[in-house]
Amino acid sequence: MGMIGGGRGAFIGGVHRIAAGIDGQIELVCGALHIDPEIATLSGQDLFLKPERIYKTYQEMFEKERELPADERMDFVSIVTPNHVHFDPARLALENGFHVVCEKPIAFSLDEALQLQKLVKETGLTFALTHTYTGYPMVKQAREMCTSGTFGKIRKVVVEYPQGWLSTPIEQTGQQQASWRTDPKRSGKAGSVGDIGTHAENLAETITGLKISELSADVSTFVENRLLDDDANILLRFDGGAKGILHCSQICAGEENAIKIKVYGEKGSLEWHQHEPNTMFVKWLEKPMEVYRTGNGYMGASAAAHTRVPAGHPEGYLEAFANIYRDFTKVLQAKLDGVDVDPIFNDFPTVDDGVRGMKFIDAVIESGQNNAAWTKIV
Amino acid sequence: MGMIGGGRGAFIGGVHRIAAGIDGQIELVCGALHIDPEIATLSGQDLFLKPERIYKTYQEMFEKERELPADERMDFVSIVTPNHVHFDPARLALENGFHVVCEKPIAFSLDEALQLQKLVKETGLTFALTHTYTGYPMVKQAREMCTSGTFGKIRKVVVEYPQGWLSTPIEQTGQQQASWRTDPKRSGKAGSVGDIGTHAENLAETITGLKISELSADVSTFVENRLLDDDANILLRFDGGAKGILHCSQICAGEENAIKIKVYGEKGSLEWHQHEPNTMFVKWLEKPMEVYRTGNGYMGASAAAHTRVPAGHPEGYLEAFANIYRDFTKVLQAKLDGVDVDPIFNDFPTVDDGVRGMKFIDAVIESGQNNAAWTKIV
Amino acid sequence: MGMIGGGRGAFIGGVHRIAAGIDGQIELVCGALHIDPEIATLSGQDLFLKPERIYKTYQEMFEKERELPADERMDFVSIVTPNHVHFDPARLALENGFHVVCEKPIAFSLDEALQLQKLVKETGLTFALTHTYTGYPMVKQAREMCTSGTFGKIRKVVVEYPQGWLSTPIEQTGQQQASWRTDPKRSGKAGSVGDIGTHAENLAETITGLKISELSADVSTFVENRLLDDDANILLRFDGGAKGILHCSQICAGEENAIKIKVYGEKGSLEWHQHEPNTMFVKWLEKPMEVYRTGNGYMGASAAAHTRVPAGHPEGYLEAFANIYRDFTKVLQAKLDGVDVDPIFNDFPTVDDGVRGMKFIDAVIESGQNNAAWTKIV
Amino acid sequence: MGMIGGGRGAFIGGVHRIAAGIDGQIELVCGALHIDPEIATLSGQDLFLKPERIYKTYQEMFEKERELPADERMDFVSIVTPNHVHFDPARLALENGFHVVCEKPIAFSLDEALQLQKLVKETGLTFALTHTYTGYPMVKQAREMCTSGTFGKIRKVVVEYPQGWLSTPIEQTGQQQASWRTDPKRSGKAGSVGDIGTHAENLAETITGLKISELSADVSTFVENRLLDDDANILLRFDGGAKGILHCSQICAGEENAIKIKVYGEKGSLEWHQHEPNTMFVKWLEKPMEVYRTGNGYMGASAAAHTRVPAGHPEGYLEAFANIYRDFTKVLQAKLDGVDVDPIFNDFPTVDDGVRGMKFIDAVIESGQNNAAWTKIV
Repeated sequence: MGMIGGGRGAFIGGVHRIAAGIDGQIELVCGALHIDPEIATLSGQDLFLKPERIYKTYQEMFEKERELPADERMDFVSIVTPNHVHFDPARLALENGFHVVCEKPIAFSLDEALQLQKLVKETGLTFALTHTYTGYPMVKQAREMCTSGTFGKIRKVVVEYPQGWLSTPIEQTGQQQASWRTDPKRSGKAGSVGDIGTHAENLAETITGLKISELSADVSTFVENRLLDDDANILLRFDGGAKGILHCSQICAGEENAIKIKVYGEKGSLEWHQHEPNTMFVKWLEKPMEVYRTGNGYMGASAAAHTRVPAGHPEGYLEAFANIYRDFTKVLQAKLDGVDVDPIFNDFPTVDDGVRGMKFIDAVIESGQNNAAWTKIV
Repeated sequence: MGMIGGGRGAFIGGVHRIAAGIDGQIELVCGALHIDPEIATLSGQDLFLKPERIYKTYQEMFEKERELPADERMDFVSIVTPNHVHFDPARLALENGFHVVCEKPIAFSLDEALQLQKLVKETGLTFALTHTYTGYPMVKQAREMCTSGTFGKIRKVVVEYPQGWLSTPIEQTGQQQASWRTDPKRSGKAGSVGDIGTHAENLAETITGLKISELSADVSTFVENRLLDDDANILLRFDGGAKGILHCSQICAGEENAIKIKVYGEKGSLEWHQHEPNTMFVKWLEKPMEVYRTGNGYMGASAAAHTRVPAGHPEGYLEAFANIYRDFTKVLQAKLDGVDVDPIFNDFPTVDDGVRGMKFIDAVIESGQNNAAWTKIV
Repeated sequence: MGMIGGGRGAFIGGVHRIAAGIDGQIELVCGALHIDPEIATLSGQDLFLKPERIYKTYQEMFEKERELPADERMDFVSIVTPNHVHFDPARLALENGFHVVCEKPIAFSLDEALQLQKLVKETGLTFALTHTYTGYPMVKQAREMCTSGTFGKIRKVVVEYPQGWLSTPIEQTGQQQASWRTDPKRSGKAGSVGDIGTHAENLAETITGLKISELSADVSTFVENRLLDDDANILLRFDGGAKGILHCSQICAGEENAIKIKVYGEKGSLEWHQHEPNTMFVKWLEKPMEVYRTGNGYMGASAAAHTRVPAGHPEGYLEAFANIYRDFTKVLQAKLDGVDVDPIFNDFPTVDDGVRGMKFIDAVIESGQNNAAWTKIV
Repeated sequence: MGMIGGGRGAFIGGVHRIAAGIDGQIELVCGALHIDPEIATLSGQDLFLKPERIYKTYQEMFEKERELPADERMDFVSIVTPNHVHFDPARLALENGFHVVCEKPIAFSLDEALQLQKLVKETGLTFALTHTYTGYPMVKQAREMCTSGTFGKIRKVVVEYPQGWLSTPIEQTGQQQASWRTDPKRSGKAGSVGDIGTHAENLAETITGLKISELSADVSTFVENRLLDDDANILLRFDGGAKGILHCSQICAGEENAIKIKVYGEKGSLEWHQHEPNTMFVKWLEKPMEVYRTGNGYMGASAAAHTRVPAGHPEGYLEAFANIYRDFTKVLQAKLDGVDVDPIFNDFPTVDDGVRGMKFIDAVIESGQNNAAWTKIV
């Protein structure tokens, strides 16, 4: 694998490298790790890359790598840059024949996302989007139970992603993560909505198998002089009649990364929190709540296939992330071997989720600008 | 105390009697306990009322009781009937010089509520509305911390009251509690919104000290042939700029009476669930979350004054309810004694909360009928 | 009911009065409320007792009350004094024909307890011991499930009652509750073991239906100059081969009244905490843990009969306490009516539990004095 | 790194490989992966080892590897075999100049453990023992707070490790993990005590910095025909006067790997569960309980240095395990570089913990055979 972004000072790049490394199937062989060539070089040395494969730009990386023999060049590229540098390297990767793992949101605009979707379709290459939370085994269990009708028809979804780390204007202190995330030039038209709201949207649609048809969003910026939203309260309507609420916030003082979801059906419901991701509460109309725990024999096939340790030994965020990489490489390997991949492993967010996320962002921001008018996601 | 409603087959009447009895200061002396005179009589006998004070109608009760000598007649009346029979007995009570404890919602319409408000003002009588949840000591602690600025300016409020007991059309089976609550003739224009949404509204406004200025409500009826709403998702805007979400539902399969609230300020936040009412989570920007527990020395004066047992011995719903009755009688006693009541005990929902609740219901239902258009609460 | 002890400055007396009052069936008619006659009088006035039934001593109370006509005199006496004043009033009550509710531990010595047991047998009077925790509906559910074989043969029991309030020598500050509880002359030979260890023992034996056959106790006094134990770690062996651990402590800094129990059988297990008494965790070998909640339709008959409010409205310590009084009066009423009481209500700790508790204390203290040698409970 | 054991069918070997791989600093270069040479070969191929470095025996591995040039041969060996094959390969490794990571318990007998301790001292090589739980950042925080006196003098420790997976005689079904763990020839004289009791002992001594001086153990085998203990209830006494309880069990039906600990000091206490390892409850005498969470700025230096992701993204068992490997390699690297390692990373269980564990096992088993007589750990 090659990596774009993720050099010194970055956060998510290191997470990708751990996630890619956990199962011992992926090796980082090259990178264009920073926009500043000097930092890029130092970052490459930190990671023991061969000097000739520490690239100054991703353009150079694609050019050089595609010239290498097939068994030497990187198999795919991992794009871990701020939002405004997702599209171009992803496009170039696809055009140069490389599979892609890309951070979310997939692009800066819906138009870009649609271009990538078209390119993926045309090239037949594999594209994974790192909506980490759907990599948790318990989320897969939730999806299996919802979509197989365990709870009857879904009526209501409540999903939230509260954070508190932007409660004060820390972007004005130069904090790197805060700076680009609150900067429309690097983050896009949305702040909290793009950064974490899309995760909530993806989680809700993935678990329920339902699509949000329209939404009404009250979008706010609480911190003075902040240029993007830091909070949104959103009413949801799903295809088929379910209703819901989604809220995301970066000014919920004291909250960490508290993404959680509740799904209510006619016969029962589920509740899952990232805080304790190996647990899911399953509630019923007329019998005791059940507490599902990963690693147990009663778990479904998909959850079981994405669990690494026995019940009671907690798995976390890095393992969820690693599940995306692991499945992605299984698909690549199957392609190389000319066989069909076991469908249980063909299970990670794709370019389609990326397009969906951009549509969600567009709808939320549009609704927000229209005093929370109902806005369709088409 | 006299009681209207609460005879055989009723639920909340018995709760009121326990709540009134816990502190040993209130005695039930008379009642018009059921609309059916025969059941009224039997119910009165169940409760050891003297035969001559078991009344057939509340009209009769007021007539007869006011004729009794001051030290014999009931001091106040407790109204525990379905919603459509709140206004008239409350009005009569006030007109006949009796203080009132009334179940919520206070009346069938805002107009009725305003009439009662006027009457209370004119008569100088005391009127308590049993929004039970604000009787919990920890809710008083939450209010004290919010309104004294502990968390800085409040930015966001998330309050919810999910129930699951109306997930199926049990009103069609003759279940008494379900029948009147889903019947517009007895419940009013709102179902879940009136029954439990008003509790959530009252809790949010009480704790924060802020008023909801406008709201956007997506109101639903999920169960076929049900005549009133059984679910509502509501965006809130408060005076002063805070935003929020309120949702109430009776189709959240597997939920019991899971009212909970989170309030986020600039500097910290709180979280409280009725499920474990003696606990409150207090979160901060840069230090560990604290877990407040009733009965401890660090609790504020109001919480302490409304706690009966030492820390670690859980108190519950009946004690919260009893706090309303206890404080109400303290006010009555002070009036009798011609002294000022200790302000710490002059602390229960009043006719003003009742008016507020009716305005909330009106706004939610109007917004719901207008596709969740923003609707002001005036 | 008459009361002995529980005057000004007392804690548990007030709890008894609330518990007795909750269901509206019991009236406090007389009392010998304090050892100091002046305080006794003032305390009686606080509680609106008639002057002639405010007694100076319990001896006087029994004398005068038994002279009253049957329909006027108290039906039973509630003894809420410190431990060293349990036996004598209980004995006198029984000898004078009064039923008894008594605080635990039942007496100052096993010998006294055995005398009371004999008296109860001879007189046929009813004797209730307020081991409050077995009054919780969920504890009744636990007992029903354990003793009916739901979990197979019981193998292991872990029960604990940690408190932190005696972490410092507050008895030296004159704190009333601490003073008598750490004073061998008023408390008996045991401190924490008698005060809370007996609750743990009673809970474990009640829920499992098993008797502790022998124990090995490491008994400690951590606070300097304290005269009684403030901590004990105890190995348990039960009849039939189950093993267990019991620990009680008053120096567990930061703990409130955190009594909890886990019972492990061949096929499953349960876990219950007083902290959240309406919940019980039920674990199985090969299926998800279930969370039982009071007030739901799936609860057993005994739990249902001892629950007052619907699921989700928490009940607490006072309601558990009230269940003892409620059941006690049902037995009394049945005796008065000459009928058999419904066995579901003939369910409270009796003089036999009291004897058992004294044997437990004796065994623990003896074992502690012998370096935790195994000591039988006979 | 080379590996001994951990081939097809093994559990813990895979865990070691993930743990070693997470930080991208360790490469598996050779192995003697199974006692059956054929399976050893297949297992080596699974892991992409070079054919010439897939060894048939560990003896062969040491012989061949030591002949390789320093920059080619393995730097250390990881021993992940059943208990009876820990000592000999560890001894050989040390004698051949290789550093060692070894599974616990360190050996089959105390005598073997002492030999290894001597060898480590003599050779100056580095030896890590994988008591995983002390690798959790929150455990390091607990240790820091306890040993720096945050809670005052420690008075009481309650540590438990309940599992339920051996509730039935699954060793008789051929289940591989159960088979060797219940076989005295492969596991040693102890079953649950060696397998998980030693983890509890190590956790308690590590966090508190106190040593157990003597213990009284009631050791049981509940499952018929099982050859080793599957449950133990143990009273502890620590140097300096603290008391405690340790219990470990493999017949606690429904429990997963529920290791947890509570430590009570004069001024406060802590509680930590593996179930939710990123959280620690810190309780105080007179202020609200605090909930520490990894990844926050208020965490101590050691916890911070062993945390990989921001607060709220859960880390788990594999990351705790990886912390041992990461620190171990930092020590090795420092040795190679001839510099002192940053003490914050010189932090993993060593051969001394291994000796301690064997002494603990010996004492528990001896006490168990003597009806729980107090037995010293020397």
